[in-house]
Amino acid sequence: MKKMDPFKLLVSQEEAERILLENCIPVQSTETVPVSQSLGRVLAENLKADRFVPPFDRSAMDGYAVVAEDTFAASNEDVFLALDGVIHAGEVSDKAVSSGRCLQIATGSPLPEGADAVVMVEYTERQGEQILITKPVYPGANVSRKGEDIKEGDMVLSRGSHLTPARIGTLAALGRTTVEVYARPRVVVIPTGKEVVSPGNPLQPGQIYDVNSFTLEAVLSSHGANVERHPVVIDEQAELESAILEALESDMVVLSGGSSVGEKDLLAGILEGLGEVLFHGVQIKPGKPTLFGVVKKTPVIGMPGYPTSCLSNAYVFLVPAIRKMARLPEQVERTVSTKLSKRVVSSSGRRQFLTVRIEDGFAHPVYKHSGAITSMAQADGYIILPVNLDVIEENEEVTVTLLE
Amino acid sequence: MKKMDPFKLLVSQEEAERILLENCIPVQSTETVPVSQSLGRVLAENLKADRFVPPFDRSAMDGYAVVAEDTFAASNEDVFLALDGVIHAGEVSDKAVSSGRCLQIATGSPLPEGADAVVMVEYTERQGEQILITKPVYPGANVSRKGEDIKEGDMVLSRGSHLTPARIGTLAALGRTTVEVYARPRVVVIPTGKEVVSPGNPLQPGQIYDVNSFTLEAVLSSHGANVERHPVVIDEQAELESAILEALESDMVVLSGGSSVGEKDLLAGILEGLGEVLFHGVQIKPGKPTLFGVVKKTPVIGMPGYPTSCLSNAYVFLVPAIRKMARLPEQVERTVSTKLSKRVVSSSGRRQFLTVRIEDGFAHPVYKHSGAITSMAQADGYIILPVNLDVIEENEEVTVTLLE
Repeated sequence: MKKMDPFKLLVSQEEAERILLENCIPVQSTETVPVSQSLGRVLAENLKADRFVPPFDRSAMDGYAVVAEDTFAASNEDVFLALDGVIHAGEVSDKAVSSGRCLQIATGSPLPEGADAVVMVEYTERQGEQILITKPVYPGANVSRKGEDIKEGDMVLSRGSHLTPARIGTLAALGRTTVEVYARPRVVVIPTGKEVVSPGNPLQPGQIYDVNSFTLEAVLSSHGANVERHPVVIDEQAELESAILEALESDMVVLSGGSSVGEKDLLAGILEGLGEVLFHGVQIKPGKPTLFGVVKKTPVIGMPGYPTSCLSNAYVFLVPAIRKMARLPEQVERTVSTKLSKRVVSSSGRRQFLTVRIEDGFAHPVYKHSGAITSMAQADGYIILPVNLDVIEENEEVTVTLLE
Repeated sequence: MKKMDPFKLLVSQEEAERILLENCIPVQSTETVPVSQSLGRVLAENLKADRFVPPFDRSAMDGYAVVAEDTFAASNEDVFLALDGVIHAGEVSDKAVSSGRCLQIATGSPLPEGADAVVMVEYTERQGEQILITKPVYPGANVSRKGEDIKEGDMVLSRGSHLTPARIGTLAALGRTTVEVYARPRVVVIPTGKEVVSPGNPLQPGQIYDVNSFTLEAVLSSHGANVERHPVVIDEQAELESAILEALESDMVVLSGGSSVGEKDLLAGILEGLGEVLFHGVQIKPGKPTLFGVVKKTPVIGMPGYPTSCLSNAYVFLVPAIRKMARLPEQVERTVSTKLSKRVVSSSGRRQFLTVRIEDGFAHPVYKHSGAITSMAQADGYIILPVNLDVIEENEEVTVTLLE
C-alpha cells in the first residue's frame, strides 16, 4: 500500500464553494415549453408586451356607468339619472352615456362611450327607470384604464426571470401559450464501487445497495437539473475513465461512492489525467472527502461515498452549483427557530452539520454517523456548528435549516 | 338589478381557514411509483426493514483489520503485526485474522473473521510484510457494525412520511425500486366568465385572457395536486352547474373568475342548490370575494376574479387546503428580513397582503391594484399588514414571505 496523502488540496468550505461556482457556467441553450408547464423555469426571452392589459377601459365594480360631473351634487341633493340599459359582463355596448343618463354595468365590462366613471351599486337606489345616486364619484372612479396593468411595448419580464405563478399569469394575460426558457442543465450521476449494487438486484456477500445516486438525483432534480442516473461503475481506472469521458457531453458529472482513500486517489488521478483537479478534501463534517475537477470544461465532482456525507454535501455544494448552472436565484432556505433538546459538542475542528428532528418544540439531534442514511432520513433539518464553536448547551435557541 | 347582499357569510381569515381545512379530507387512495420518482410524495406504507444495513460488519476506514487486543501496547512500544493479505473494496476474504497478524482492508469491505477492529492506515507503517502499529485501537474501532444504520425489523419510515431525498435514500438502501404513496389529490380548475378567453385564441372587443386557471394550476401543482385545467365556462346557471357537477368526481373544484357581485351570487346560488355554502367573503385584502361550499363532500371554492386577488388567496387558502388533502406537512415559508423602502398605510380594515420587490437591501412595494397581475409578477414576496396595524414607517424592518 503506497503512502497516502490524498488531501493535499484540502480547502475550507468557502473556498470549495468559490472554486466550484467559478467553474459552473450558466446554461446557454434554450427550449420552448408550454406556459402551463413553465413553473420554476427561467425565462430566456425578453417579454415585451404586444398588447394592452386590460385591452380597454373597463368597469372595476358592479354599478352604473355615468358622466362623473353629473354626480358631483349627490352629497347635497338627490341626483337621478335615467337608465338606458344594461351591459352584462363580456358585452360591448353600442350605446353611449350622455349627461343625465346612465347604463348599468358589470365588473369587467368595457366602459361605454361618453361615460368616465362608475358608481358602485351600493351607492345607488333604483326607482323604476331612474337611478338615485347617493354618493359623488370623480372622473375615473371605479374604472380600470386600458393598459393600467400592462402597456403595449412594456418590458414586462426580462430574460433570466424565474417563472413564478404570477409570472406565468403575466404570460397568460398577454395570450401566450408557449414560452422560451433556458434548458435544464443535464447532470450524469455515476454511482461507483465494486461493492455497490443497484436496488432491484440481489445482494451478494460483501455488497450493499446504491443509495447515493438516488439521493443525488432527488436533490439535483429539485433544483433545476435533468438527471441521468448511470448504472453502477466498478472503481477501476478503465471503467471510471470511460464512464466519465462518455458523460462529458452533459453539463455536469457527479460521481458517488469511492469512499475509501484509495478510490478517491484513483478518481483524482483520472481527473488529473483527463483534466485538472481543483480541490480534494474540504474542511467540513461530514463530507471531507469531496473532490472537484474540470475535464474539457465540464465540472466533475466526486462526492463522498458515505450516504450522509454525500447527501449533506449535495445540499452544501451541489445545490448552489446546479442553481447557478440552471440560472435559478440563490436558494433561500426554510428555517425554523427552536430549542436544542440536549447539549452537543463539536470536536471536529471542521464546520459541522448536525441533523435534528423537530418534535415537541425541541430540536433533537439524530445524527449517528456519516455512513448511516438514517442520520438524515429521520431528520427534519440540520443545525450548523461553526468551526470555532465547540458546544451548544441544552435549551439554547438554534436555527434549524429544513431538509427538503 | 336585484338588491345585492352577497357577503352575509363574511368571515375572518382565520375562520375561513378553519372552515376550509375542516372540509378538506386527506386523500385515501394510493399508488405505486418508482423510488426514483417519489420525491415530495407521501409514504402510504409502513416501511419495515426486511434486512440489515449494512448487511455485515465492515471497515469504516482504509487500514488494517486486527485483533484489537494486539494493539493495546502500541502507545508504549513498537507493535508489529504480520500482513496476511489484502481485502479490496467489494471483496469478501476467506482468510481469518488471528492474534499477531492482520489483513489490509479497504473502507466498506466486510471485516474478516477473527478481527474486531481496524487500525487506520495513518497510524501504521509498512515494513516489508510487517505492519508497525503506532496507536492502539479498542474493539469495534473503525468498524461499522451489521445493522448499525438499520436493523431487520426496524420501522424505518412510517405511513405519512414526506419523501425527502434522505428518505428516498433509505428506500434505496433497503433495495426497494418502487414505493406505495398516497395519490395526489385531483383538482379541477374551472375558469369562468363570458369575457374570458383562453390564451392562443384571438381577443374580441370586450374580452380578456384567462389568467387565473394558469396561476392556480401553478400554485396547486407545486403543493401536491394533479391539476386539470377546464376550458373556460361562461357564467350562466346551466353551464356553471353542469361544469361543477362533472368535476365533482375530483377531490376539489376551484372556480376562478366571476369577479362581479352578480356572478358570485350566481355561483353561491348554484352551490346552495347543489350542496351548502360555508362562507362567502373574507375580511382580507386583496381577495374579499372568496366563496366556499361543499357539494356531495367535494370542496368547491370560488376564487376572486381579479388575478392578484385570486393568486394571493391561492397562497393564503388553497395552499394549506391542498397540502392537507395531499397529506403534505404544513408549509414553512421562506422569509427574508429587510427594510421597507417607503411608508405604507393600510386603510382597509382588513388584513392586507402587500407585494414587494427586494432590491438593494430594501423591500419596495409594487402593489398596484387587485386587477393587475403585474402587482404580483414584479414582486419577490409580500409583507402582511395586520388588521389592527395602519402604518409601517419607511426603513422599518419587515419580514418578506417569498412568493414561489
